[in-house]
Amino acid sequence: MQLGLIGLGKMGGNMRERVRRAGHTVVGYDTDPELSDSASLADMVGQLTESPRVVWVMVPAKVVRPVVEELAGLLDEGDVVIEGGNSKWINDHHHAELLAERGIGYLDCGVSGGVWGLENGYALMCGGPEEDVAKARPVFDALKPPGDFGFVHAGKVGAGHFAKMVHNGIEYAIMQAYAEGWELLAASGEVTDVPAVFESWREGTVIRSWLLDLACRALADDPNLEGIRGYAEDSGEGRWTVEAAIDLAVPAPAIAASLFARFSSRQDDSPAMKMVAAMRNQFGGHATLA
Amino acid sequence: MQLGLIGLGKMGGNMRERVRRAGHTVVGYDTDPELSDSASLADMVGQLTESPRVVWVMVPAKVVRPVVEELAGLLDEGDVVIEGGNSKWINDHHHAELLAERGIGYLDCGVSGGVWGLENGYALMCGGPEEDVAKARPVFDALKPPGDFGFVHAGKVGAGHFAKMVHNGIEYAIMQAYAEGWELLAASGEVTDVPAVFESWREGTVIRSWLLDLACRALADDPNLEGIRGYAEDSGEGRWTVEAAIDLAVPAPAIAASLFARFSSRQDDSPAMKMVAAMRNQFGGHATLA
Amino acid sequence: MQLGLIGLGKMGGNMRERVRRAGHTVVGYDTDPELSDSASLADMVGQLTESPRVVWVMVPAKVVRPVVEELAGLLDEGDVVIEGGNSKWINDHHHAELLAERGIGYLDCGVSGGVWGLENGYALMCGGPEEDVAKARPVFDALKPPGDFGFVHAGKVGAGHFAKMVHNGIEYAIMQAYAEGWELLAASGEVTDVPAVFESWREGTVIRSWLLDLACRALADDPNLEGIRGYAEDSGEGRWTVEAAIDLAVPAPAIAASLFARFSSRQDDSPAMKMVAAMRNQFGGHATLA
Amino acid sequence: MQLGLIGLGKMGGNMRERVRRAGHTVVGYDTDPELSDSASLADMVGQLTESPRVVWVMVPAKVVRPVVEELAGLLDEGDVVIEGGNSKWINDHHHAELLAERGIGYLDCGVSGGVWGLENGYALMCGGPEEDVAKARPVFDALKPPGDFGFVHAGKVGAGHFAKMVHNGIEYAIMQAYAEGWELLAASGEVTDVPAVFESWREGTVIRSWLLDLACRALADDPNLEGIRGYAEDSGEGRWTVEAAIDLAVPAPAIAASLFARFSSRQDDSPAMKMVAAMRNQFGGHATLA
Repeated sequence: MQLGLIGLGKMGGNMRERVRRAGHTVVGYDTDPELSDSASLADMVGQLTESPRVVWVMVPAKVVRPVVEELAGLLDEGDVVIEGGNSKWINDHHHAELLAERGIGYLDCGVSGGVWGLENGYALMCGGPEEDVAKARPVFDALKPPGDFGFVHAGKVGAGHFAKMVHNGIEYAIMQAYAEGWELLAASGEVTDVPAVFESWREGTVIRSWLLDLACRALADDPNLEGIRGYAEDSGEGRWTVEAAIDLAVPAPAIAASLFARFSSRQDDSPAMKMVAAMRNQFGGHATLA
Repeated sequence: MQLGLIGLGKMGGNMRERVRRAGHTVVGYDTDPELSDSASLADMVGQLTESPRVVWVMVPAKVVRPVVEELAGLLDEGDVVIEGGNSKWINDHHHAELLAERGIGYLDCGVSGGVWGLENGYALMCGGPEEDVAKARPVFDALKPPGDFGFVHAGKVGAGHFAKMVHNGIEYAIMQAYAEGWELLAASGEVTDVPAVFESWREGTVIRSWLLDLACRALADDPNLEGIRGYAEDSGEGRWTVEAAIDLAVPAPAIAASLFARFSSRQDDSPAMKMVAAMRNQFGGHATLA
Repeated sequence: MQLGLIGLGKMGGNMRERVRRAGHTVVGYDTDPELSDSASLADMVGQLTESPRVVWVMVPAKVVRPVVEELAGLLDEGDVVIEGGNSKWINDHHHAELLAERGIGYLDCGVSGGVWGLENGYALMCGGPEEDVAKARPVFDALKPPGDFGFVHAGKVGAGHFAKMVHNGIEYAIMQAYAEGWELLAASGEVTDVPAVFESWREGTVIRSWLLDLACRALADDPNLEGIRGYAEDSGEGRWTVEAAIDLAVPAPAIAASLFARFSSRQDDSPAMKMVAAMRNQFGGHATLA
Repeated sequence: MQLGLIGLGKMGGNMRERVRRAGHTVVGYDTDPELSDSASLADMVGQLTESPRVVWVMVPAKVVRPVVEELAGLLDEGDVVIEGGNSKWINDHHHAELLAERGIGYLDCGVSGGVWGLENGYALMCGGPEEDVAKARPVFDALKPPGDFGFVHAGKVGAGHFAKMVHNGIEYAIMQAYAEGWELLAASGEVTDVPAVFESWREGTVIRSWLLDLACRALADDPNLEGIRGYAEDSGEGRWTVEAAIDLAVPAPAIAASLFARFSSRQDDSPAMKMVAAMRNQFGGHATLA
């Protein structure tokens, strides 16, 4: 089948390649002409000669809205737009309504896999009507890993991004788990070869996982992670996960702790701990550092 | 080679079987005569005709000390005792000293794998002198999973149990991560088929892992986990991990949160929240539940 | 001066009394005719003969909007509306704009003090233009405690409710602090008279506070809090505090932990811990409770 | 009465002064001859002419043991030793046994109040036999604040230090509560005068407390705490509180979070967050900072 694919960056570029390897035609569009297969969104849509058309949007979250609006004017009734970025699930309903006015279908699809997706396949979490999922099925099959897993039709519009959001929230806490364990092993003198311990865990243990494999790759390059600063960004889904948990009165202490650890890592000095130091000084005459 | 194996319960029994399948001779001892290959510890030692002897202790933590003491009187210089239970690493030094007085070697060896170890192999984290590790190497090779991973000589005496303790601490937080994500998906109406989302994550995602595979097995049996109470025991290693972190001034918020969640799960009513409710009532006239 | 006061429940009723004791005239309105001094909002406004009029809104958060809308049609240019409920600060901007179209001023004012405010005074955290604060100053002076403290003009519209929200977030964590300490003392056999320890802390210690005084009152009534269930509601500000912290990338682990503890207290069974128990059963054959 | 007082540093020196102001005789001993009233422990004991003698030990935790041992050889049957430092409660039993062999009584007494104790009085949490408490009662009365509060006989030997430990654990979380609230107010643009908000909270609010008063003192000196680094030590009791909670299976998430925040504040770079950054880089090609 034919696929229109908007956004050909680190993720989108590899996805184009994987869909093409599966024998499909991909017409890509990117604002960077070096990457793009088309001169404009309109040109891209024009090159899609099959009906219904399927167009995958893989652009930064803040650009999604104008792209969807432009597509609303270019596509026809029965076509389908798939929003594959890390959008907040509550925005999906707006997009779906906007396109529905023109009879255009909308699917939200969380995508996991990172730079490994090209070779391993991308895990896809999709929300929207079954009939629209059916129209895009060959593309989903091309992108997903072989075998039984890696694709789910999670529910109505929004369910895909909600599932992806929770996936990422879980990811934060799993990364934090290994990170705390690594710091503890490194801080203690008991274990003399910490990377070897991590490596050994890759088979037979309860905690074997793909993230552990990646941790071992990182330790193989730099056994003490000396070349890396303890500074971690967050990309929104962790925050939304905790917000959704709060909204639903679900306790999420480990995910929240993981998020706060990232916030702390980005502070040169902790304002809260200034206040703690100031109070200690007031009651105990404890010295403070200037 | 020959192995003496003390403790033939859920773990020890399967380990005996796996070592035998690899072609070695195992003389087991258990206080349950139905399980035991020998009438007593002395009888077991007597049946080990090779020198040096290797004896694996796989008994509950509180029984380790008397067993090691009895072995000190039965074994000869150059023999090796391996403590494979979930002992606290600081106890290993006592055991090693006690045996060293008689010239007997001591290895501590954390074992992961649970009921799956018989088929998949057991991950082994070992501490002690290289020469003693060498004496037991064929047994380690028999127990561990095939391939490059699943065994580490982590350092001196105590390092094996320390590594296993941290492994379990990480395990607590990873389990908590999936558990929070599951509760959030279940609490929200967005995703209509939560087990399908978990199942889909098994390939291609960043959070694929063996624990996720197990979560999916549990959901396949009971999609809403209706037959299981939200009650989780802890077996010591999680507590020791947080204690070790505190001792070394290592922040461990996610592991600690996971431990506290288990504590809470075992309380019919939270004393702390009685106090919170009492204070709210005092200042705001908020109703309390009796 | 004259004050119109809408909402004469637990808080509003006592505030009317305190303002009257200071010599001012209060015309109250409540949907309950038993409590009300006027037949309708319009009647209440009609009874306010001074100009500019000052009207205090003290109604449940969800009713604030329609009340403000109705007042917009009843008041005149130069009058001032004060929103004293536990509203989310972001709503204040909407209210202020709505009234500004008619030339009516708007102040948001967080109120702390609970059932003790009538005698002790109410702490007031106010946001809005200085000129509107000046119009209401005699009422603020009547409501606040005597002395230097208990009133702040915290900033522009929204600042009052934001300050009150943070006040309540802090309150959650302080209550949790005492609650954890109380549970620990009660769980340990070391201290034989736990209420006496709490009582002793009321003078001379670093942790003496009004909340501690209230905890002691509760323990004086019921030394083991046997008559109170460990079940705590939350009223929104704790959630908003954590959400604001997340939005601003501020680590708030103690406040978040306090909020999650309340969520947990309201669950008969923890879904997350069902999942933990299920996974433990899968790998270790650990028994689960049904 | 007469009191022997060992350790005349920041705490002990002020305590000597307060006991003297109450009309008692204090013979102090310190290794610093500038501070000391006696040439040696033996000299100090010799100057105590009343029977039974009461000796208060106010020295750093690591020096307590040798001081108690020396006192065991200097004092007589019926005399009483009071250990007033921040010792771990489990050490009190050793001290008590050691002295009991000589018929000497032992009390453990946690002391709160810091540099303010001289004027306000010291809160005292005491453990040990009633008869020994009676012998020291005039000293307790001299040290404690006037009024009903500030002294408790909490239980047997160890109960005093246990109560003081929990007091400090609570203190950690209360300080963290204000600190998080302060950081949030400062990070948001909503409130324009953050110190004024804190100041206003000192009367009428639910969160008024002595620690809040101290926070306001600190903000009066330095409204943005610019001269203070966000670096907080911990002195042991917070760690012991969490360890005791773990030992008793008591959830203590807010106190633990407060302790971990102090640990983090002392790290130039977070090892755990290096690992998080390394994993993010492995799966997503996210840039790391070197």
